[in-house]
Amino acid sequence: LRSAGARPGAARAWQRRACAPTRKTGGRLSITTVADLGEFGLIALIKAVLPAGSAQILGIGDDAAVVRAPDRRMVATTDLLVEGRHFRRNWSGAFDIGAKAAAENLADIAAMGATPTALLLGLATPGDIAAAWMEDLARGLAEECARAGASVVGGDVSGADSVMLAITALGDLAGREPVTRSGARAGDQLALAGRLGSSAAGLALLTAGAADTSGSGDLAGLVASHQRPRPPYDAGPEAADLGATSMIDISDGLVSDLRHVAAASRVRVDIETGRLPEDPALRSAAAELGMDWLGWVLTGGEDHALAATFPPGTGMPSRWTVIGTVGPGQGVTVNSQPADGLNGWTHFG
Amino acid sequence: LRSAGARPGAARAWQRRACAPTRKTGGRLSITTVADLGEFGLIALIKAVLPAGSAQILGIGDDAAVVRAPDRRMVATTDLLVEGRHFRRNWSGAFDIGAKAAAENLADIAAMGATPTALLLGLATPGDIAAAWMEDLARGLAEECARAGASVVGGDVSGADSVMLAITALGDLAGREPVTRSGARAGDQLALAGRLGSSAAGLALLTAGAADTSGSGDLAGLVASHQRPRPPYDAGPEAADLGATSMIDISDGLVSDLRHVAAASRVRVDIETGRLPEDPALRSAAAELGMDWLGWVLTGGEDHALAATFPPGTGMPSRWTVIGTVGPGQGVTVNSQPADGLNGWTHFG
Repeated sequence: LRSAGARPGAARAWQRRACAPTRKTGGRLSITTVADLGEFGLIALIKAVLPAGSAQILGIGDDAAVVRAPDRRMVATTDLLVEGRHFRRNWSGAFDIGAKAAAENLADIAAMGATPTALLLGLATPGDIAAAWMEDLARGLAEECARAGASVVGGDVSGADSVMLAITALGDLAGREPVTRSGARAGDQLALAGRLGSSAAGLALLTAGAADTSGSGDLAGLVASHQRPRPPYDAGPEAADLGATSMIDISDGLVSDLRHVAAASRVRVDIETGRLPEDPALRSAAAELGMDWLGWVLTGGEDHALAATFPPGTGMPSRWTVIGTVGPGQGVTVNSQPADGLNGWTHFG
Repeated sequence: LRSAGARPGAARAWQRRACAPTRKTGGRLSITTVADLGEFGLIALIKAVLPAGSAQILGIGDDAAVVRAPDRRMVATTDLLVEGRHFRRNWSGAFDIGAKAAAENLADIAAMGATPTALLLGLATPGDIAAAWMEDLARGLAEECARAGASVVGGDVSGADSVMLAITALGDLAGREPVTRSGARAGDQLALAGRLGSSAAGLALLTAGAADTSGSGDLAGLVASHQRPRPPYDAGPEAADLGATSMIDISDGLVSDLRHVAAASRVRVDIETGRLPEDPALRSAAAELGMDWLGWVLTGGEDHALAATFPPGTGMPSRWTVIGTVGPGQGVTVNSQPADGLNGWTHFG
């Protein structure tokens, strides 16, 4: 967040909005908005809740940030989150939106076998959003960054008609070779770290307006998983150290994302459903809604579990569960059967 | 641009739009749109026009990119460009919008004394934009990256109600210390590299609908400067090597941006208007419109010239023009007079 990073259009757009008073009068509560803060006030508010991390050499407030890259290489990824498409302000709180935005980018870094070090935040927003909402968003970003060992080092803010987050995450390979999607070999084991299907189940519960989704029960936990995924960041570098031949972050669905591994590696990837981890909460939710828990596991997106392939005989730490094998051929099969109908999110298909 | 980087919401949003046919029938021209391409088609189209650069170890198509950071540090900056606020599709072509988006980020890297190496592109777009428009946008990004010695290594695409670009630029310091905003000292010289006021003049000409803004004349050159700034990237590392004590990219206006240097360095920065470079085109445009060319130079934004301070006695290469001095005190003065009225883009002020 550059203290001189103002884009003229942004400032003027917010200024226009600021002309229409947003403070309520006549004894009603006065809520400070982004337009009240102004661009520099918003940057100051965000900066105040973002601690500096160990990789940061120069943080918020100059033309650019400077970040340590001890390995002489930097892993980098960008994701967009658009209001109404990737999140809804009436379904998720600002803290969760911030944490989720950070999580999905940090998980991409981990999926290369790297340790996340830094985040940059592009934040487009209408002027009438409450300043407190923005502060919560920044706290969510900061907390998820802290889980992953990273920190927010810079960014930009702009006016817009709806909220949009553009997050860039950076990471350090610490001497490891990046684990791509293209190295899986016939004979490898397919293994999984992290939870699968819980975000899709949580979304199904929210959509159905199911009861018992608040509090601390199984169903509430699934809703929480949808609102704030918790990728197993450490499992990424761990897999690289174990000799993983390929790895991917499960963001669109297990079958859909493994298709990319199969295509890039020119192999067939087979999922054995009998080896998928038991998840009693998923079974409870499926019973509650009359739906299929296996569908959530195979096609549900946004959990940000990591799937990786390992040479045969690799000893797996407890965090990793072997769920299938790699063989000659192409595409993804489930229990050796074609998985053509299991597209997860169908891309214009 | 991750081949598996699909965000579910984005895919679904575009899919919805794809249901409403965008191809004209009955003998009318059929224009391929983003919705026709789909997410992966759009990524493939963009990727096809983006050459790999020398800093790229792993480019588009995996969970994240891997970029060389030979210096063990990485300079990083993010900017948003929102349609209707930072650009208009009826005033600028896609190529220019892409080039400008790249330029303003690459200039931030140069302003730290670093050489730009890589760019990541977050691209949000409605489905009904022509595929050819997106291809031109990518060509503009690629060409400006090439001017700066960088390349596009990754990104993300999403559906949205209007076009938005989120660009992250990375750069290499090659052993230099980063040149911040806070190192200016009383006695330093203030110097400028690159053109100032031309973007503001070009915008004024466009706004006034002035004649003679096409072709190759002076006025056309100013409009071209607005549509596509050409920051002097090499001047950034050059200034660092010359011992620059502070540096900033002029994006909001000379006076406005130097205020950040003055504040961060706790000094007064004085601009001497008699030393500003002559620019006959600016004088022609001012005469044409009955406006003040000096106003454009002092307060016009978006030229992405570089302003830097140097110790007294520094021998300046021809690219740098000394335009003032640094003294004790605070704020920015023009010919030793307060510049309070010269705010460029007033930030909610």
